[in-house]
Amino acid sequence: MGLSLTYKILGQNLLKGELRPGEEICVKVHQTLTQDSTGTMAYLQLNAMNADKVKTEVSVAYIDHNMLQASFENADDHEFIKTSAAKHGIIFSKPGNGICHRLHLEKFGKPGKILIGSDSHTPTGGGLGMIAMGAGGLDVAIGMARGLYYLKAPKVYNVELRGKLQPWVSAKDIILHVLRELTVKGGVGYVIEYTGEGVKYLSVDDRATITNMGAELGATTSIFESNEETLDFLKKQGREEDYIPLSADPDAEYDEKLVVNLDELVPLAAFPHSPDNVHEIPESEKIKVDQIAIGSCTNSSYSDFMKLAKILEGKKVHPDVSLVLSPGSSNIMNMISENGALATLIAAGARVLEASCGPCIGMGQAPKSEGISLRTFNRNFKGRCGTMNAEVYLVSTETAAVSSITGYFTDPRTFGADIKVEFPEKYALYDNYYIYPPESDEDRRKTEIIMGPNIKPFPINKPLEDEFIRKVILKTKDNITTDDICPSNAKLLPFRSNIPKLSEYCFNTIIPDFKERAENNDGGIVVGGDNYGQGSSREHAALLPLYLGIKAVIAKSFARIHKANLVNAGIIPLEFINAEDYDKIDEYDELEFKDTKSSLETGVFKILNKTKNIEFEAGFTGSEREKKILEYGGYLNFATSSEF
Amino acid sequence: MGLSLTYKILGQNLLKGELRPGEEICVKVHQTLTQDSTGTMAYLQLNAMNADKVKTEVSVAYIDHNMLQASFENADDHEFIKTSAAKHGIIFSKPGNGICHRLHLEKFGKPGKILIGSDSHTPTGGGLGMIAMGAGGLDVAIGMARGLYYLKAPKVYNVELRGKLQPWVSAKDIILHVLRELTVKGGVGYVIEYTGEGVKYLSVDDRATITNMGAELGATTSIFESNEETLDFLKKQGREEDYIPLSADPDAEYDEKLVVNLDELVPLAAFPHSPDNVHEIPESEKIKVDQIAIGSCTNSSYSDFMKLAKILEGKKVHPDVSLVLSPGSSNIMNMISENGALATLIAAGARVLEASCGPCIGMGQAPKSEGISLRTFNRNFKGRCGTMNAEVYLVSTETAAVSSITGYFTDPRTFGADIKVEFPEKYALYDNYYIYPPESDEDRRKTEIIMGPNIKPFPINKPLEDEFIRKVILKTKDNITTDDICPSNAKLLPFRSNIPKLSEYCFNTIIPDFKERAENNDGGIVVGGDNYGQGSSREHAALLPLYLGIKAVIAKSFARIHKANLVNAGIIPLEFINAEDYDKIDEYDELEFKDTKSSLETGVFKILNKTKNIEFEAGFTGSEREKKILEYGGYLNFATSSEF
Repeated sequence: MGLSLTYKILGQNLLKGELRPGEEICVKVHQTLTQDSTGTMAYLQLNAMNADKVKTEVSVAYIDHNMLQASFENADDHEFIKTSAAKHGIIFSKPGNGICHRLHLEKFGKPGKILIGSDSHTPTGGGLGMIAMGAGGLDVAIGMARGLYYLKAPKVYNVELRGKLQPWVSAKDIILHVLRELTVKGGVGYVIEYTGEGVKYLSVDDRATITNMGAELGATTSIFESNEETLDFLKKQGREEDYIPLSADPDAEYDEKLVVNLDELVPLAAFPHSPDNVHEIPESEKIKVDQIAIGSCTNSSYSDFMKLAKILEGKKVHPDVSLVLSPGSSNIMNMISENGALATLIAAGARVLEASCGPCIGMGQAPKSEGISLRTFNRNFKGRCGTMNAEVYLVSTETAAVSSITGYFTDPRTFGADIKVEFPEKYALYDNYYIYPPESDEDRRKTEIIMGPNIKPFPINKPLEDEFIRKVILKTKDNITTDDICPSNAKLLPFRSNIPKLSEYCFNTIIPDFKERAENNDGGIVVGGDNYGQGSSREHAALLPLYLGIKAVIAKSFARIHKANLVNAGIIPLEFINAEDYDKIDEYDELEFKDTKSSLETGVFKILNKTKNIEFEAGFTGSEREKKILEYGGYLNFATSSEF
Repeated sequence: MGLSLTYKILGQNLLKGELRPGEEICVKVHQTLTQDSTGTMAYLQLNAMNADKVKTEVSVAYIDHNMLQASFENADDHEFIKTSAAKHGIIFSKPGNGICHRLHLEKFGKPGKILIGSDSHTPTGGGLGMIAMGAGGLDVAIGMARGLYYLKAPKVYNVELRGKLQPWVSAKDIILHVLRELTVKGGVGYVIEYTGEGVKYLSVDDRATITNMGAELGATTSIFESNEETLDFLKKQGREEDYIPLSADPDAEYDEKLVVNLDELVPLAAFPHSPDNVHEIPESEKIKVDQIAIGSCTNSSYSDFMKLAKILEGKKVHPDVSLVLSPGSSNIMNMISENGALATLIAAGARVLEASCGPCIGMGQAPKSEGISLRTFNRNFKGRCGTMNAEVYLVSTETAAVSSITGYFTDPRTFGADIKVEFPEKYALYDNYYIYPPESDEDRRKTEIIMGPNIKPFPINKPLEDEFIRKVILKTKDNITTDDICPSNAKLLPFRSNIPKLSEYCFNTIIPDFKERAENNDGGIVVGGDNYGQGSSREHAALLPLYLGIKAVIAKSFARIHKANLVNAGIIPLEFINAEDYDKIDEYDELEFKDTKSSLETGVFKILNKTKNIEFEAGFTGSEREKKILEYGGYLNFATSSEF
């Protein structure tokens, strides 16, 4: 039986475990990337590990998210990341250079390599034939420090592309079609591997659009083979030497398969408010459009902007439309300046923003109340654009461009003759936005890491004590969310790199004085009901309790990701073995833990409620690695140990 | 005795009053401009007057301030202004088109005309030989509705420019020098009129830099003659027909005179934190720079960006510097795209923002903590950049450009041979960002004004009642500020066009329930101490009490501008004739006013404290026009009356 491309690359880089779907494996990490929104915490973690030079072939710290800089915090974060990068031998990409995924494709991505990035759209790199995966900030920090990454071995979903796209139908329509077929949960546990004759007609830009938005399938990642098109792209980027041809074995077997007949595809759109709510463009009804936004890591390539310029040449943006452009990289912006396309776009009446994530992450350009916005982006969740009652449609660049002229949601096939984009011989290859780390280790180590007043060190836990006594400082009901534990709003977002400050708001939706309780009782225990920690994957919901000295959370049951985050923070997540024991505990009861290490082994903790003089049992379930993590007092401590 | 250019233009357009320094005069208004930050209120006022078509030759509504659009309010404001503009026959400039003052210069400004604008840097137009003045939103609304403007006739300060600037010394250095000589209060009550042989070497861009930053002198406005350079500028803008030659009489007499020898000028900078804290660029000390920002209505012209591109050609922005550019208009951005200058700037490593006010008004790009920022802007007040402890220096484009390469505060004369900028034969003349109002009155009147949920109508007062009884719902101490009356912070700024919402915060620094008190007592009276209403010129500090039904404020004394704002709102500002009467009034005392109209005439109000059965006297001092305003219940009502 032949191998998929996914399994070839994973297999060649397997460090631990058995490469079988569902099994935990450990693979080599060749490259990492971070952006600034998650990067600050990743570098606080890397610094906390006392890491020296990164163990990867290349690690890059990009600034692309928080670039509005309404007050000092953003700029301080940039400076912190810049100096942390220099210290650890990481390349720094200055704000203004562009969006991490576009830049990484241009400059660093290589077929056959494994990349992890602290951003969910890291799979963009799959367009170059890499295994490129989004990961938590701590995983990326450990990836940099140790050059490896733990994950569940995926199944592989084959999408076979047959035939060729019709004029005015594009790569964006392919991924929209796949989302319609598979839904936003359909990719969970899978790598999506694209094959078939249709692949050869897709440029690397096209492929990257597809692998990028593959994140919306819930997939581990998506991947294309590395072929002549890949070589051509790398040549134009001046990196011919990075090319290797790669593809699945002809007789590769896959876990699932979807066939897409490209000839039959038509222009599509994801309607509000989900990327898989995919329909054809309405013909009968003329939907007036208020805003059109082109850019984001999905559709901000050179070819996107050249197509747009060809469509807008000599035309005028409709008076009722705000057309907003954010190119993917300074390089692309330079090229479209040089060749006149940008002048065309400005003359037509476009708004030109910085090369950054911008409106895609709600960083500006919120539509008006109840506004209709067509966007070439990858997500249209309710409110993500900044306006709760706006209606956001996700479309191709062609659809967005043609609609910007007509002023209503328009099928681009009505525009006229097909357009063709010629790629230049070479991309613009200056790199004045990159700051390379000092070459000598001595200079590198001398770098002073600059932490503005809003950036505080990452809190480090202590190794597990074999015995301890603590009070229950909070007892909650069922369904406590990560928003309860760590509130998230515009006011608090700037404090994500300031755990001490943020800890003042810990559990604030429930009680006003959780922090005082923890401070007055040398930390403590939290008792929870069912589904404790549901909601987002927010690491901070474990970091605030860690900072405040919480030793364990005993609940009826946990939400999966929060439980893993508690383990990573070195806080023991325990489940009542008899649910009714929950009722026998009151706030401020004193609990005694004994023999914690052997209890971890057996998975059963016998806990004495000293206040009421009752003993009860609570269980821990987790992998051997997770037990080690708890023993060491958190993933950071374990990852820097000799046992890792 | 010959006439100054200022007095020639004012004299030709005098409608009422005597043209003598200090006298109130009324002049014809040919043009108005608004920006979006002050414009929303100006159009609420214009709409409240039930105005039809504006009475000016041209009125333009620009969007250049609030363009980040973090949530729906900004975009809703844009839509409201756009529809209000269409309704009243006003030209609308879409966001992305650029900064109002640059655009007005390019497209609409005409020598000899009078322009008022709801922005303090409206004097930029003086570079074209206009009388261009900043004014309050209500003044601009009335200017649009009635085509006239009341002001105190100014004195005229002559600045004679002798000789010619040395290489690397520019117009910015001239105005910095004038600020050093005259200080930020030196221009109060004056128009600054530039004459002398040096004028002929200054382009319209140069002149506009000087008249723009003349606002920092506290001057009414600044003006240059209209000569060959003016003609050349208008020709390049395709508006040759708008040219008329204009200058002062050769024997004009001036109230004050300053001579500047241009040959002797060197590159200057305004050090933190005032535009008149002007010094030469430090030679001995190498001050490292974190951020350099080029743009704003002061230095964002075509010549600024071409100079910058010539300096950065083939160079690299210093790794420790964030170089941020915001061109003055889409037109300029189009031209520098077309001719390759923008590509040069991007290749060097610059951040390119939208054509807008941007960082100059603290709308993004706050420097890092304690950061050093060189800016080509006009103001460096502490905290204005968004970072309270940053140090902002105001410099020329030449100084900013050269420093961006070296990474420290650098005298541009050290760079090398002089640079020359060639102007194109024609500027880019498309106007796809302008929306012109409907041509037919019928279509125009049909326009529906769209008010998002955060925009509420302007509150209209009633004509003065001859008798009324109200309670004293608040008695304050001395030195109440406009911040006490109408708090201003980031949280409340979006409610500036929502008086009902904002009124919830009225006097909140003093009592929590002012609004309830007013609602429960059919409005009321406020009693104040000395210096009531000190602080900013904020109109809203009178509009909230107006909305809440306050009939009069009786104080020991008033701050000048707040008193005028109370009059404009139709609230009678009265001063105790015997200061000790202040002590005889308590909160919730009931006061009876009789014969208010005749009291206005005599200036003395006899008020009966019904609760204590004591009568006391309070006085009103003001012009005949102000008495009329109070009689009509506010400036809006008076301005729309036949008596106006």
